[in-house]
Amino acid sequence: MDAEIIAVGSEMLTPQKIDTNSLYLTEQLNELGVEVVQKSIIGDDRSRLAGEIGAALKRTGIVILSGGLGPTEDDVTRDASALALGRGQTFRQEIWDEIGARFARMNRKMAENNKRQAYLIDGAEALPNDRGTAPGQWIEQDGRILFLLPGPPKELKAMFERQILPRLKERLPALVIRTRHFRVAGMGESDLDQQIAPVYTKYANPVTTILAGAGDIHIYLRARCKTDEEAECLLTEVAAPIEKILGDRIYSYGGESLEEVIGEILIATGRTMSVAESCTGGMVAERVTSVPGSSKYFRGGFLTYTDEVKTQLLGVSKDLLAAEGAVSEAAAREMAIGARKVLNTTFALSVTGFAGPDGGTEANPVGTIYIGLASDGTCDVRRVQFIGDRERIRMLASQSALDLLRRRL
Amino acid sequence: MDAEIIAVGSEMLTPQKIDTNSLYLTEQLNELGVEVVQKSIIGDDRSRLAGEIGAALKRTGIVILSGGLGPTEDDVTRDASALALGRGQTFRQEIWDEIGARFARMNRKMAENNKRQAYLIDGAEALPNDRGTAPGQWIEQDGRILFLLPGPPKELKAMFERQILPRLKERLPALVIRTRHFRVAGMGESDLDQQIAPVYTKYANPVTTILAGAGDIHIYLRARCKTDEEAECLLTEVAAPIEKILGDRIYSYGGESLEEVIGEILIATGRTMSVAESCTGGMVAERVTSVPGSSKYFRGGFLTYTDEVKTQLLGVSKDLLAAEGAVSEAAAREMAIGARKVLNTTFALSVTGFAGPDGGTEANPVGTIYIGLASDGTCDVRRVQFIGDRERIRMLASQSALDLLRRRL
Repeated sequence: MDAEIIAVGSEMLTPQKIDTNSLYLTEQLNELGVEVVQKSIIGDDRSRLAGEIGAALKRTGIVILSGGLGPTEDDVTRDASALALGRGQTFRQEIWDEIGARFARMNRKMAENNKRQAYLIDGAEALPNDRGTAPGQWIEQDGRILFLLPGPPKELKAMFERQILPRLKERLPALVIRTRHFRVAGMGESDLDQQIAPVYTKYANPVTTILAGAGDIHIYLRARCKTDEEAECLLTEVAAPIEKILGDRIYSYGGESLEEVIGEILIATGRTMSVAESCTGGMVAERVTSVPGSSKYFRGGFLTYTDEVKTQLLGVSKDLLAAEGAVSEAAAREMAIGARKVLNTTFALSVTGFAGPDGGTEANPVGTIYIGLASDGTCDVRRVQFIGDRERIRMLASQSALDLLRRRL
Repeated sequence: MDAEIIAVGSEMLTPQKIDTNSLYLTEQLNELGVEVVQKSIIGDDRSRLAGEIGAALKRTGIVILSGGLGPTEDDVTRDASALALGRGQTFRQEIWDEIGARFARMNRKMAENNKRQAYLIDGAEALPNDRGTAPGQWIEQDGRILFLLPGPPKELKAMFERQILPRLKERLPALVIRTRHFRVAGMGESDLDQQIAPVYTKYANPVTTILAGAGDIHIYLRARCKTDEEAECLLTEVAAPIEKILGDRIYSYGGESLEEVIGEILIATGRTMSVAESCTGGMVAERVTSVPGSSKYFRGGFLTYTDEVKTQLLGVSKDLLAAEGAVSEAAAREMAIGARKVLNTTFALSVTGFAGPDGGTEANPVGTIYIGLASDGTCDVRRVQFIGDRERIRMLASQSALDLLRRRL
């Protein structure tokens, strides 16, 4: 069966915004063996949207709507769908109670216009929304499936996973899909591709997809087969040589993030860590503490944005800062050693550098980062050089810092 | 006149690729006073594409196709357009000569299938392509305009600028577009909408769009008028009552982020800040330092993830932590006061709370956050309660903390 995705919202027809929910939905649908054959983006325009829904239902088996389920006047997806289907809508007390309970839990006053969200298209099944107020809806008509999902990506993803996936699986022929998901740090995308392309291009199944973020490359292998065994066997045939080529540059064999991998090892070995950040301004710690349970190994850290504070909190010598500057190997070393000593942790990471757009010297231009890793008796410092805007440089610096710690572990 | 954009290419229906040409086209069209009312992405499927072109020409004045003009079998845009228009195609020797000359200049051998590119829809005007081989096409029918552009962004942009823009300008009335962009913190989307809907729903021009992120609402107003003055006047007519209703909950009048607004005020008034973060683990500081030049006002901060570290670095009393816990008004107060004192800044923000998924007490369940703001002689503490996953709670907490500082400023 094929699918069509219709994203609703005038903001996605501006030069600034783009529909990205459809990428997630496409990925999920492909896993089920469903191809996406058309995507549309339509503004908050009831009659145009109703026209498109009607046309989509004529030509495609699964029609997915995202967005436009909110409480405001310009949230038109419910009305347009009812119109296209030729069905009415009914106020449902139990949905209204649910929304009320949610507001009560948040100690927030509920506006009267939220009532709009409690209307269900006749014959539709309401899909609970664990992450927001707007429920989704699932409707079948003349052998076609239409479902309405909320626009915020988190709400959409949770609802797709918990409500849509099981319903679709029931209705689609069983194909086994097995995947591997490697993550690689410390090399560029084209370099990586050049090394592993001779392996994966020999196979149409599994499908290999390489996706690069800042300092972080994802390799997805996806096999579609009749049985588990067949799929796993095919995956291993491709994965084994890739693992051999990339070696310890693969930091994750199941899609976990660098901070999750670090957390698992620290917990397993009972060790602790702290940070001293300058140019990343808290990004390393923010990532480490994004992992639930990180309080078991992360004790704390220092954000030392000025020279004075580096000296005051971490004991970085004034003379050293005067002689070599705060962006130097020596400063990174003293920052890491200082943080480790004050907070009494097994490891301490430090980051100092020029994130730009201004700053930098001839010897250390914008994009130069020093990363220190202090542990018992030693402190390694690594100098790295990145290109990009402030956000990218900070992201790459935090990635390098976490990868330095991962390799040590 | 309104426009529709149809992007052609099966690769844009995969989970990895997205149509971005439409962002450029939308920007260009908006400048001419043309609204984009629908975007579609269709694979290399002749009959589906022909159907969509036909439908688009029925409902919209300007229909733009991008991609699918290449020499291969799966480049179907020319054929589908001819089909939708009910017109034939004719081989044009002069286009073929042009393509031949281009290959000769590049010293490349021309494949026979390039002949496909020399076919012109009957009655169409050929649009020369300075950056590639595929010419574009411009067709008018029944007062509607259809044009075909190549998919590669460089070719598309050059052709739009040199060929399309002058033709559209000739046919369109001169219109200007002016926008306002407010950002609001500290209230929910539906609450906000209920308050301002009575104002903006009275106007079809300017168009009002409301977009909500975590603790952050964007309000866009966009006016289309004959003159600058008229547009600005209309915008003010709608913006003034909205500004009055929302008051100081509007933190940005030009789209700047909360951290940018705070930075501007701190720089202008020569004041400084620091942070003491527990559950947000560096997110507040990371946001503050994401702004270039933040070293002028951000001196540093403390990530105090354990009780012990709160006492050690910030002087939070052990007895207090034992009696009231680290997630308490008193702890937030002492953290902020401690950070301000140690780092000698005008302001210090503290954040302590339960971000989940585990932790929390009966009095302070997961989602409870205390935010402290220390300044000369005083320290305000605010208790807030959020619902969501760890990431959302941390994001909302950092937003509340920055907003507390902004209101003080």
